[in-house]
Amino acid sequence: MNYESFFEGQLEALRAEGRYRVFTDIERHRGAFPRARRHAEDGSDPCDVTVWCSNDYLGMGQFPPVLEAMHAALDQCGAGAGGTRNISGTNHHHVLLERELADLHGKEAALLFTSGYVSNWAALSTLAARIPNCAVLSDESNHASMIEGIRHSRAEKILFAHNDPEDLNRRLAALPADRPKLVAFESVYSMDGDIAPIAELCDVAEAHGAMTYLDEVHAVGLYGPRGGGISEREGLAHRLTVIEGTLGKAFGVMGGYIAASDALCDFVRSFASGFIFTTALPPAVAAGAATSIRHLKTSQVERERQRDRVAKVRAGLDAAGIPHLANPSHIVPVMVGDPVHCKQISDTLLDEFGIYVQPINYPTVARGTERLRITPSPIHSDADIDHLLTSLGKVWARCGRSRMVA
Amino acid sequence: MNYESFFEGQLEALRAEGRYRVFTDIERHRGAFPRARRHAEDGSDPCDVTVWCSNDYLGMGQFPPVLEAMHAALDQCGAGAGGTRNISGTNHHHVLLERELADLHGKEAALLFTSGYVSNWAALSTLAARIPNCAVLSDESNHASMIEGIRHSRAEKILFAHNDPEDLNRRLAALPADRPKLVAFESVYSMDGDIAPIAELCDVAEAHGAMTYLDEVHAVGLYGPRGGGISEREGLAHRLTVIEGTLGKAFGVMGGYIAASDALCDFVRSFASGFIFTTALPPAVAAGAATSIRHLKTSQVERERQRDRVAKVRAGLDAAGIPHLANPSHIVPVMVGDPVHCKQISDTLLDEFGIYVQPINYPTVARGTERLRITPSPIHSDADIDHLLTSLGKVWARCGRSRMVA
Ligand SMILES: Cc1ncc(COP(=O)(O)O)c(C=O)c1O
Ligand SMILES: Cc1ncc(COP(=O)(O)O)c(C=O)c1O
Repeated sequence: MNYESFFEGQLEALRAEGRYRVFTDIERHRGAFPRARRHAEDGSDPCDVTVWCSNDYLGMGQFPPVLEAMHAALDQCGAGAGGTRNISGTNHHHVLLERELADLHGKEAALLFTSGYVSNWAALSTLAARIPNCAVLSDESNHASMIEGIRHSRAEKILFAHNDPEDLNRRLAALPADRPKLVAFESVYSMDGDIAPIAELCDVAEAHGAMTYLDEVHAVGLYGPRGGGISEREGLAHRLTVIEGTLGKAFGVMGGYIAASDALCDFVRSFASGFIFTTALPPAVAAGAATSIRHLKTSQVERERQRDRVAKVRAGLDAAGIPHLANPSHIVPVMVGDPVHCKQISDTLLDEFGIYVQPINYPTVARGTERLRITPSPIHSDADIDHLLTSLGKVWARCGRSRMVA
Repeated sequence: MNYESFFEGQLEALRAEGRYRVFTDIERHRGAFPRARRHAEDGSDPCDVTVWCSNDYLGMGQFPPVLEAMHAALDQCGAGAGGTRNISGTNHHHVLLERELADLHGKEAALLFTSGYVSNWAALSTLAARIPNCAVLSDESNHASMIEGIRHSRAEKILFAHNDPEDLNRRLAALPADRPKLVAFESVYSMDGDIAPIAELCDVAEAHGAMTYLDEVHAVGLYGPRGGGISEREGLAHRLTVIEGTLGKAFGVMGGYIAASDALCDFVRSFASGFIFTTALPPAVAAGAATSIRHLKTSQVERERQRDRVAKVRAGLDAAGIPHLANPSHIVPVMVGDPVHCKQISDTLLDEFGIYVQPINYPTVARGTERLRITPSPIHSDADIDHLLTSLGKVWARCGRSRMVA
């Protein structure tokens, strides 16, 4: 077999479909977020752009105390952890961060991973594979990292209709009462921005003796009086068996975790390949994340200002008749519905208006629902918003896309 | 099912076997490696220890230019990347680092991942799953991250005897000539410290039209005139289809990568879930790693001094009759062969002599081959080595373990 031509053929197919991905190479300017310098592929001079699609939702990645904590930990402990958690890689900053996370979710314990992806993959695959005969009930819109974790476990997977407690109930009722069961879902779904009916899903799961596993990756830091996510906001954290989150989005750094009982965390710690056999997070990353979490446990200004910015963008889109998906979260999906147009609009915004919103195509979203995913943050000014709205309006007019009646 | 008691029962079984893992909580002191402060579990005062089991093999985690690059990138770009590589997370530091890595291995391209574990898991699972009817020939001693990646692909996996080109040849010969094949192995095996016969394995793979995938995690930075690993030292890099490595061991920071052809890297970039759906490495981590790689491309002192330290430790162990596995690498496995004794010796070294060598038990090594894995580095002084050898000698005498004739 000619492997090279196989790879090239597959890439050609992506290009033909209009969903070959070109990464936009940027340098965010600390102190000037959401501004960034864009390095063009053709080597022409870099130019400044405004980022409108970052998952550093609150701008914590430039928050001075977070950076100070990272500088201090670098100076104190050096660059990397130097080992896996078991073999010389557990640094006191990891231990402190795990305590901070357990406290954030009101759980006995927390366990750190190198990313949110790895936390989902490793925790779900370990639980589902090691609990004998476990059945996994998975929301059909779950994130790739959860899907891959469940797949890896080789446990039986049963999809339930998105955010549908009744469907979950039917599927659980079809299983033997004494069979171990795990219900996995997210709080805020990152591409549509809709929010799960957590209480109802917990009601159903509890009635059938199932464990619950909630991905709060797009909610931690952003919802709840202490940033504990939707489960905190709704007073439900104690009902979830596992809460999973990331340190790379609202907390602005990198890493992932689960929070749960002592025994569950210790079990995953002791058996999960993806936890055991990998170098631990750099101490400076752990120190920065802990500072970010601590700050957002008491400060409300970032969350309030973000809500205000989101409302202003939505109102402006409505006024301009630009179609976007209504939802109760901070995510503003402007719907395009075609991969080629979606990339064109994004390219024009970037090249002509200095606005960076990445086109979101399959497989991140379903075919036919291609979109621009806008994430307003506390650090977007009124002028930024005005410029976004006028630019989008111009591009929309130029490419003759339909508008909604405002 | 009572999930909590299931977890507790499983943990109890680990304890009974003597292989329940207690993480040693340390803070390495930048500028004073291999010294670290140990935080005791019982809350008693922290005390200083010498780390003898770090995978920061050359002490690059405290190398001032690496730390300076990280400080500068923190100040320039902030804490995290703020997104996945595709959605606002590609920072210029990632692009530069990928170029540095491609150059290190003399390949057209390189692709970054959040860890070495994820690079193996994601690259192998993507290649093996997406190349139609691919058979994976896997060295029986491969690392967990390779095993899990191959498992995840659901491609047919065929084990071959460890470091045995003849066995590989027999197994390849048994497959149809036109079937796609991937041979996966490591250069330096981390627990025994033995080194693969790369040329012979390549001969066999090439004869059967198989791709080759080499994990150089424990070799990059350490071997070859530019730190390109065993494949560089032996002039074989061009014969390997994929070279995989980590930024978390000899390079002292965190992250993983593959280096290969443009098309192969682009293919994995475009299809690997574990690459696509996760927040990119913090720019500061990328900047630190790039500085470390660049330094080790020209500087030989770290590698030479490490070799000298390794030889000195080995000679001392021989003189004291303490059994260790002979091998041609920098890894010194002192064999104990029992999980409970192994942990006891390690605890005594830590509590009484201030020497930290983690016991290595199943599943990291096979049952009955439990060991202390010692990793001498350029920053261990003569006095450190003398203290290690006398302390080990005392503990060995006290617990009545057999000695080899020196
Ligand atoms: C729902 C969800 N879970 C998990 C992840 C992975 O988190 P991380 O970026 O920390 O790997 C993401 C996105 O990246 C996500 O959208
Ligand atoms: C052979 C081998 N490959 C890959 C890895 C994973 O690399 P990382 O620690 O960067 O995840 C390790 C150890 O951790 C290893 O020993």
